[in-house]
Amino acid sequence: MNSEPNNSDLRPGEVAVELPAATDAGVYFIGTIHTPWHTRSECPKRGSPDGPICSIVVNAGWREALTDIAQYRHIQVLYWMHRARRDLVLQTPFSSGLTTGSFALRSPVRPNPIASSIVELGAVEDTTLRVRGLDCLDGTPLLDLKPERTSHQ
Amino acid sequence: MNSEPNNSDLRPGEVAVELPAATDAGVYFIGTIHTPWHTRSECPKRGSPDGPICSIVVNAGWREALTDIAQYRHIQVLYWMHRARRDLVLQTPFSSGLTTGSFALRSPVRPNPIASSIVELGAVEDTTLRVRGLDCLDGTPLLDLKPERTSHQ
Repeated sequence: MNSEPNNSDLRPGEVAVELPAATDAGVYFIGTIHTPWHTRSECPKRGSPDGPICSIVVNAGWREALTDIAQYRHIQVLYWMHRARRDLVLQTPFSSGLTTGSFALRSPVRPNPIASSIVELGAVEDTTLRVRGLDCLDGTPLLDLKPERTSHQ
Repeated sequence: MNSEPNNSDLRPGEVAVELPAATDAGVYFIGTIHTPWHTRSECPKRGSPDGPICSIVVNAGWREALTDIAQYRHIQVLYWMHRARRDLVLQTPFSSGLTTGSFALRSPVRPNPIASSIVELGAVEDTTLRVRGLDCLDGTPLLDLKPERTSHQ
């Protein structure tokens, strides 16, 4: 999976590197996130507790792992930003116009496009969780769910 | 990578499932975390801002992505818990003795062993970051660094 840097669509100051020849570990997509947003430009910049109710549908094989999750009000959701390129080390966000390092930004564009959001958990219906606070595209692959540390039963 | 459930070492109530036949995406290990802890039992249950200074060494190929990170006091560190099994849906933590779902726990044992910690950033020396607040094993692979949202320049 050796990728040549793709230098099209770079903004001024942005720098792409050649990605390593191979990945080092694999992730399982354990479910799918459903939101009202179908393009990056529609997505809110940051999820809000006042935002729309979204659905997280966990694959049936992981059903038992949801045991007791409904006791938590806030959960951390990890997901895979499947549409983002992974090879930029310097980025120039449209919003600021300032070039900075990928690790000094929360942009989806990063070597491992893993996002972490804290959401408010509403109903849990079998393998579907209703939550507020997401900001990702409809169809985003789910990686993990954990109780948020500051959340109490 | 079809794995048979390994039912040795299960505690009462714990349930393992067969992992999917293949992973869905790959992660790059972008660096290594150095801590004083060499076994799971030595690791603190949770990182503390009063804990020891640990080092995060980023691979040289990602050096430019660190540009401007030193401006942040708190950063989110994502890392790969490389020693954890991935196939348990129900777990019985030693501390509580209560069986519960993997997604209702922050245990390292989960389908995708990705951990997220907020650390206090000290010195940045080339590709080495000195931080406080980690709780992972020495040699843990690094996945990502992001400014913490509540952190200001």
